[in-house]
Amino acid sequence: MKKKGFVRTVFVERPSLNDNTADAQRLEKSLMDELGADQILIPLHVLKHLPSNLRSWGFQAKAVLFKNRHSWILLDLLNPGYDNPVLGTAIDIGTTRIVMSLIDLETGQQIGEQGFDNPQAGIGPDVLARIHYANQPGGLDELNRLVIETVNHNIAALCEENGCSKEDVYLVTGAGNTAMTHLFLGIESFEIIKEPYIPCVNIPDTQSAGNLKLDINDRGAAFLFPNIGSYFGGDLIAGILYSELDKKEEPCLMVDVGTNAEIVVGNRDWLIACAGAAGPALEGGVSKMGMTAKPGVIDRVWIDPDSSDLKIHTIEDQKPIGICGSGMIDLAASLFLSKRIDIRGKFSKQVCGDRLFEREGIMAFVLVDESHSGTGKPICLSQVDLNSLTSSKAAMYTILEVIVKNTAGLEFEELQKFYVAGTFGSFINPVSAISIGMLPDIPISTFEVLGNSSLGGAKVLLQDPDAFERIMIIRQSITYIELNVNQEFMNMFSGAKFYPHTDASRFPSLKNKI
Amino acid sequence: MKKKGFVRTVFVERPSLNDNTADAQRLEKSLMDELGADQILIPLHVLKHLPSNLRSWGFQAKAVLFKNRHSWILLDLLNPGYDNPVLGTAIDIGTTRIVMSLIDLETGQQIGEQGFDNPQAGIGPDVLARIHYANQPGGLDELNRLVIETVNHNIAALCEENGCSKEDVYLVTGAGNTAMTHLFLGIESFEIIKEPYIPCVNIPDTQSAGNLKLDINDRGAAFLFPNIGSYFGGDLIAGILYSELDKKEEPCLMVDVGTNAEIVVGNRDWLIACAGAAGPALEGGVSKMGMTAKPGVIDRVWIDPDSSDLKIHTIEDQKPIGICGSGMIDLAASLFLSKRIDIRGKFSKQVCGDRLFEREGIMAFVLVDESHSGTGKPICLSQVDLNSLTSSKAAMYTILEVIVKNTAGLEFEELQKFYVAGTFGSFINPVSAISIGMLPDIPISTFEVLGNSSLGGAKVLLQDPDAFERIMIIRQSITYIELNVNQEFMNMFSGAKFYPHTDASRFPSLKNKI
Repeated sequence: MKKKGFVRTVFVERPSLNDNTADAQRLEKSLMDELGADQILIPLHVLKHLPSNLRSWGFQAKAVLFKNRHSWILLDLLNPGYDNPVLGTAIDIGTTRIVMSLIDLETGQQIGEQGFDNPQAGIGPDVLARIHYANQPGGLDELNRLVIETVNHNIAALCEENGCSKEDVYLVTGAGNTAMTHLFLGIESFEIIKEPYIPCVNIPDTQSAGNLKLDINDRGAAFLFPNIGSYFGGDLIAGILYSELDKKEEPCLMVDVGTNAEIVVGNRDWLIACAGAAGPALEGGVSKMGMTAKPGVIDRVWIDPDSSDLKIHTIEDQKPIGICGSGMIDLAASLFLSKRIDIRGKFSKQVCGDRLFEREGIMAFVLVDESHSGTGKPICLSQVDLNSLTSSKAAMYTILEVIVKNTAGLEFEELQKFYVAGTFGSFINPVSAISIGMLPDIPISTFEVLGNSSLGGAKVLLQDPDAFERIMIIRQSITYIELNVNQEFMNMFSGAKFYPHTDASRFPSLKNKI
Repeated sequence: MKKKGFVRTVFVERPSLNDNTADAQRLEKSLMDELGADQILIPLHVLKHLPSNLRSWGFQAKAVLFKNRHSWILLDLLNPGYDNPVLGTAIDIGTTRIVMSLIDLETGQQIGEQGFDNPQAGIGPDVLARIHYANQPGGLDELNRLVIETVNHNIAALCEENGCSKEDVYLVTGAGNTAMTHLFLGIESFEIIKEPYIPCVNIPDTQSAGNLKLDINDRGAAFLFPNIGSYFGGDLIAGILYSELDKKEEPCLMVDVGTNAEIVVGNRDWLIACAGAAGPALEGGVSKMGMTAKPGVIDRVWIDPDSSDLKIHTIEDQKPIGICGSGMIDLAASLFLSKRIDIRGKFSKQVCGDRLFEREGIMAFVLVDESHSGTGKPICLSQVDLNSLTSSKAAMYTILEVIVKNTAGLEFEELQKFYVAGTFGSFINPVSAISIGMLPDIPISTFEVLGNSSLGGAKVLLQDPDAFERIMIIRQSITYIELNVNQEFMNMFSGAKFYPHTDASRFPSLKNKI
């Protein structure tokens, strides 16, 4: 049976001398029966012409619904024969990039998708800069206006491209980090970055579209995913919803490698979360490795089995111009497995041979020489780059170890699924990541790429009314732990800086490769 | 201890590294603790500057609150030192006249009161005419605009007269009959007067002031009292609230003598209601008797104990120009007790003597001769007028008998209180009304005049948050009975057309008077 969504056909009992209940109360009863709800809000605009509408529609109607924290909400009541589309827009409100998806609320089908840069980036590239700006006179309004206007513009364009109208859009669901959520709502955000790091709101309730100046159907509503705290936002809740971690019997893990590495482990009974932006070891994080993916960027590296030479693949098969994060991890794995770097992450002169050169006292490995490079210059990996990658991979492994082993008390092997979310995560080759000791050595089939799980979660909410309660339950049941960068952490981190680890027994699959 | 109202001072827990809950959630918790509530809606406008407000206010605030059907609502959060008045306006939305009262929500004190004609009367004098008008194109909007604009104008004037501002008004509570309630909300009302007599809405939920175009504080809200059905409106629920019928241990009765005679009998365990506008015998009702009270109108009549002459009192002691309803009842009682009319309600030529004359075959009694009249013409009561009064008093007694004895199964003597509400009812002398058999012969101390109980109920809601639930419970617990004008009713009615009744034993207090 098809899951029922936010658009329903309702049949209202006809009145009689024996049943002279008011029209609104009979509509309310029909809706509550249909929804299995005990509360529903019917807006005044629906009441105004309800008597004549119900009678001319033969006591049937198409109801467009949504929810708030406590109740169902009737957004609009339409002619049962109404055949314009009834749409929703799911939005991933990323700090850098915003992606939106247009969903038909009656069928649950996606109609279109569109990404664009977050216009707030012009004011500040990161959360910190924007929050500071928002704290200046007029700054908050400006940042809010920027994102809302751009979203409005893109909703209109996305609708037009797909032969529908912005007035067809009744619902907006948005997921972003805590700061982006505050700025989207036009709420002061300064306390988020000031000790003791207090968001203004953790559970923003459903708002009318007009309240947020969203230019959709004027009876529409918008909901932003709740956050757990300043450093664990609605985008992560959306990710959990999308991965269905909250429905699993066995423990699973989700890691979202964005600006920070955020990790959630758990199942239907418990959820533990941790955001990895703590301590200098993790600054920059794994996502800062390499350059942004574009044509000519090296995204894959492997060892030719015959020649032991390193082979590369570039995006759109253009001449190489640089290397991106996933390419870096492949490269490090290839260098390590071919013994070009040792277990300490240092280049081996002996194995690298003439591929290695020294410049200003720093060793560098030439991956592509200038004759094959798209830039006219060789593409190299210096010992400094490599050290940075080593720190990043060690940080990732250590955080995973802290949350899975020390906090949840599990072995990595007990994880039934290991979800990798976020744009960067989508391209990592888990075999390479395991080879360098960045990810734990568990079966490859355990890993699953989620893609944009923030957008995915926002879409799920448009498609499935039950998701609303799941979101609230997820939010309430998560135990959020602060990463405590103490001596024990630093000891674990030191071990993880080796290739693959000081304790090589943790990586049995590498036994025959190294 | 003073009852707590809709304005409260709240203390919000300060955040710390050990308690990094969001500001909004901490405010929510403080409010829920203060109110003993499990749901509260916090609007976006409060969130926008909540972090800086809380910090500059030392984590204290003055909260302006209200309720809807399911939840408390925070309307606004003010500086704890805010010392402008925070006001509410209670409105009796009468068909003919609208009366409003300005209440200080912090002290519960009334600041001012103001009455004015319902401007819809220019379109149609009664409910029926207005509903027909509302069913024509543009008619509903026009009627709605008329009442809202006049209410806005009068709120502003009432505020100004009392040295405050319309922006100080956060709440509007209104009680009216079902049709007036629909027109105030701008909701189609045509089905109310068409079989099977269906209101659009019985429980209109709390609305934002802006939604109703009420020109008060733009964060304000409005609530209209719910109705039971097309013929039992929010004004009656307000009356029950005001009389506290729903809190009584012993059965009490309230009768509201307006356009119809509406009656409620019951106590804290049960309530039975009946609206008396049924059947030709009751058409016009008791309120149609006599003329509107104004200077020169005879409002009291009594028998001079020495001369047995009839004595009169006029409003403002002007020369008499006519007689109003309460005067008519006094007059009929005086005529009956002085035997000028007999038990059938016919003039006695023998007793009336030269005060009686015949014109066009109809007998008439001269109360004031032309030399003493303010109009230059004698003021008379014809047999036709008297017959009409006889029918009205018989109808009133019969309805009371039906609801108290036949429906509730009580004797009149079991009523602990007999509340008389409505403008007309306020002036009736119960001794006179008993003398003619209009009201039952129970101790005079049982009768209590309520005055404008519709306005009274609307005021109670501004003063006491518990009233909101009482209203919903009253609405839900009332058993509304349709007056069935069958043979049994007509037999009872025939008996009641005698003076005081065919069964004189029902009126023992008259024994020594007649």
